[in-house]
Amino acid sequence: MRHSLAGRAESPMQARLLARLRDDGPLSKAQLADRLQVSRTTVAAEVGRLVELGLAQEAGPAASRGGRRSTMVDLAEGIRFVGISIGATGMSVGVTDGRLTVLATRHLSCDIRQGPEVVLGAALEGVRSVLAEVGVERPMGAGIGVPGPVDFDRGISVTPPIMPGWDGYPVRDAVSRELGCPALLDNDVNVLAIGEQHAGVARSVRDFLFVKIGTGIGCGIVIDGQLYRGVDGCAGDIGHIRVDDFGPTCACGNTGCLEAFSGGAAVARDATAAARAGRSTFLAERLAENGVLTAADVGLALQRGDTEAVQLIRESGRRVGEVLATLVSFFNPGMIVIGGGVTGLGHALLAEIRGVTYGRSLPLATGSLPIVLSELGAEGGVIGAARLISGSVYAPLAGRAN
Amino acid sequence: MRHSLAGRAESPMQARLLARLRDDGPLSKAQLADRLQVSRTTVAAEVGRLVELGLAQEAGPAASRGGRRSTMVDLAEGIRFVGISIGATGMSVGVTDGRLTVLATRHLSCDIRQGPEVVLGAALEGVRSVLAEVGVERPMGAGIGVPGPVDFDRGISVTPPIMPGWDGYPVRDAVSRELGCPALLDNDVNVLAIGEQHAGVARSVRDFLFVKIGTGIGCGIVIDGQLYRGVDGCAGDIGHIRVDDFGPTCACGNTGCLEAFSGGAAVARDATAAARAGRSTFLAERLAENGVLTAADVGLALQRGDTEAVQLIRESGRRVGEVLATLVSFFNPGMIVIGGGVTGLGHALLAEIRGVTYGRSLPLATGSLPIVLSELGAEGGVIGAARLISGSVYAPLAGRAN
Repeated sequence: MRHSLAGRAESPMQARLLARLRDDGPLSKAQLADRLQVSRTTVAAEVGRLVELGLAQEAGPAASRGGRRSTMVDLAEGIRFVGISIGATGMSVGVTDGRLTVLATRHLSCDIRQGPEVVLGAALEGVRSVLAEVGVERPMGAGIGVPGPVDFDRGISVTPPIMPGWDGYPVRDAVSRELGCPALLDNDVNVLAIGEQHAGVARSVRDFLFVKIGTGIGCGIVIDGQLYRGVDGCAGDIGHIRVDDFGPTCACGNTGCLEAFSGGAAVARDATAAARAGRSTFLAERLAENGVLTAADVGLALQRGDTEAVQLIRESGRRVGEVLATLVSFFNPGMIVIGGGVTGLGHALLAEIRGVTYGRSLPLATGSLPIVLSELGAEGGVIGAARLISGSVYAPLAGRAN
Repeated sequence: MRHSLAGRAESPMQARLLARLRDDGPLSKAQLADRLQVSRTTVAAEVGRLVELGLAQEAGPAASRGGRRSTMVDLAEGIRFVGISIGATGMSVGVTDGRLTVLATRHLSCDIRQGPEVVLGAALEGVRSVLAEVGVERPMGAGIGVPGPVDFDRGISVTPPIMPGWDGYPVRDAVSRELGCPALLDNDVNVLAIGEQHAGVARSVRDFLFVKIGTGIGCGIVIDGQLYRGVDGCAGDIGHIRVDDFGPTCACGNTGCLEAFSGGAAVARDATAAARAGRSTFLAERLAENGVLTAADVGLALQRGDTEAVQLIRESGRRVGEVLATLVSFFNPGMIVIGGGVTGLGHALLAEIRGVTYGRSLPLATGSLPIVLSELGAEGGVIGAARLISGSVYAPLAGRAN
């Protein structure tokens, strides 16, 4: 098996072939011709070229459909992508095959505030470890997600409120250089959204929102199967929507942001205040034990029926639901997927978000709107980041990265 | 000149040729070949077919570029489209040529609550009058906008809150039958948005929002040059976003909707209350004279420096601005265009909307975001409706209506 492949698709037709094989699995040449509505001659020629490029391989005769048997085609066995999904307090790194099945993965703690050298250093160490585990020297490409705004075309972080030291840092090129392969950088929420589209609950939906509630809050927007990034690349930045004229100060410096009410950091802050004020014995004990409370502690309290924890989650979910109701009226999406670290708080949060969103939106827009939890968890970021770069390797079209 | 033309484009290539001629004006065959990146032979063949279909015409030799002179091509001179743009209290109807230049137009009062027979009857009477004015017997197609949700594929109105009697009414087919030509129905705000895209301030923008503040409030969403309608066709229904848990009852039956605070009807209601409470001498006089106040009266009061009118407009603009700030953070558009009847209140309203929207959004999303008034006025609806149907006549692709 070759572990280092230099090829990239050369034409839109080759890109369409590869995307089919990635998303639908192995297909016969006859099936490829049907699905792409081109002649078998064209398919045969393009597949031949993709085999030469090390991107596809023939995989024996197809089952007979009557007449001459067609040949099965699959993505080359040796294709490997790296996915790096960095959050504010944790990251996931992994290696996938050409169809974006995760072959090996690591979940690591991190503190995004330590700056790009430290955090990317840890990420690359994790990547080298998973590459070694699956015996790959050089991947075909790497996708990266970071928890803040990104200049997609330049591959750099831009004025990230919670990421001191990252502004303007050439994340994409640094990773590309270290791993010796093409790389692409996007916002972590966008990466999670396309992961969900590829392998999660949004597989069958063309227009959906992926809402990440982690330390911060953000939203990935998929329109007609494509990620929508906005004219400045900052679409979906819903964490800094002002939901109240008064309210706690946000990491961005403003007051009343959604994130400052409902993000994981905000829930931890309110839990700490509740513990100190003697409103929750359980949270006070955890605080005394660990010196600090996190959103995960609120999840534990919730499991024990702690009423203060219930109150905190309902308040958090209510604010998120109010914003989502507005977005539903505006955008009329086909699905809303809730993901991110705070989903450990699970169904209590979802119930509150659903109640408020359905209650406040017009019936026409919510009649057939599912609001569901992501099923992928941390692996979603790895799959999404791998899909991001697979789009670039498979598709030679500028600007069509997924 | 032929006034009745039965042709429609037969292929995507013909549709691309026609759209070029519509949007860019007459072009030589050489220019068409360049802009569409196809051979001159292909252009010559397709143009020949379009001439046979009565959709295009040759228009003499082009200016020399050295070598053999190319032939100019234009849309057929006899192409005529009808545009019907119906609001809650007024409508515009008109006839355009193939490039959507308005040849004749009428602006009529109406009351949408009188139901589809009465309102469409008046619209068709107006259409027949403008058709007679320009000597056209049968137009090539008609576009219609109505002030409420629409099932685009079926061409009917759907549960319109302010339109009793319209639910399920086959508006598209009724107009098509009466005028003897293909027709398309859309929401009035979508029609205004594509009018703005064709001939207004949004000509150079691919992603923008058109916000109509008339009797009601709605938003047209253009993404990558295409209208986005949402999965149920009700995207952009921002008038019923709840901006306050308490507030006046809306026409839709809920409380606290944006429209119930900031729409033209709401402004008129608040002006009436102010007049009755003795807070504005001017408004009280207008109320005594006419028995009723409209948003236009508030505009007049504003011109006289009436402080109560200033207050009403600021309050209206503030609520709109709060919602737009949320949408800017979410959608990161390239432009926001404000249009509709209430723009008669003009720059005072715009100033307030701008102040709140810029003040509350993240700098990254507003750094280069123009928020501007529509320059087209009522004619924008006629142009947009004509463009809607021109897309269908020119483009044989299902679902690509603009």
